Amino acid sequence: MKLDPMWVAGFVDGEGTFYVGVNPNKTMKTGYQVLPEFRIVQHKRDIKLLYELKKFFSAGVVRVNHDDRYEIRIRKLEVLSDVIVPFFRKHKLQTAKQFDFQKFAKIISMMSENKHLSREGILEIIDVASKMNRADKQKTLEIKSQIETG
Amino acid sequence: MKLDPMWVAGFVDGEGTFYVGVNPNKTMKTGYQVLPEFRIVQHKRDIKLLYELKKFFSAGVVRVNHDDRYEIRIRKLEVLSDVIVPFFRKHKLQTAKQFDFQKFAKIISMMSENKHLSREGILEIIDVASKMNRADKQKTLEIKSQIETG
Repeated sequence: MKLDPMWVAGFVDGEGTFYVGVNPNKTMKTGYQVLPEFRIVQHKRDIKLLYELKKFFSAGVVRVNHDDRYEIRIRKLEVLSDVIVPFFRKHKLQTAKQFDFQKFAKIISMMSENKHLSREGILEIIDVASKMNRADKQKTLEIKSQIETG
Repeated sequence: MKLDPMWVAGFVDGEGTFYVGVNPNKTMKTGYQVLPEFRIVQHKRDIKLLYELKKFFSAGVVRVNHDDRYEIRIRKLEVLSDVIVPFFRKHKLQTAKQFDFQKFAKIISMMSENKHLSREGILEIIDVASKMNRADKQKTLEIKSQIETG
């Protein structure tokens, strides 16, 4: 089985997630770590497909999501920046997930310029992340105010 | 926007459903009606995409699924037989949904030969449908015994 790039784009439009987490981390100067992640979750019956996707992107980790669900997860900044973002720029998403992807791509680009390591940069990143579909608005606001007042 | 066939295959692999319902219907000689259905459900934010899919297949009805979810639904036997089944034979599904599709295609082919109108035929169809992923095994067994003893 060799996956077709357009099939992958359609499948990710349904099943993929572009997510940016912002978590407390004392080793970071800003007190927070930005964690972008691209993932696809499937029932374990389709674990072979997750390995095919890993082969397709030449990247990622296949692991348990929860219960009988598995995921492929890609977190490495260079892979997100050099493989994942260019792939979905070329093979366009057709659902509203496209808007999430655009914000995700913007954050990856800011992180590639190390903006997440400064106070101003991380606030800018949080602003973009908070407009993503899966964002936890309340948590985002709390983190923002902590960085601003901290 | 013009949808790419392989994108559609990937998207359906994630979001599509091949379903065969068997419902009591007194106007049928067997007492039951076989209702195959291909559908894709999306949040209303992507209703435009459902209309694009309707254009793509030149078929289907876009309607409310429930709450803020909409669906494109294709039920016409000729469309399922002449458009949907050939499309997914050509553009192969990569998930376990492929097994559902194969059973769906088999039932469509049996219905095109009018097998669902006879007692033996509908029992054969119920056998195949009961092995599909979404099948309600208990309901299937009850219908089967009713047709067999009726």
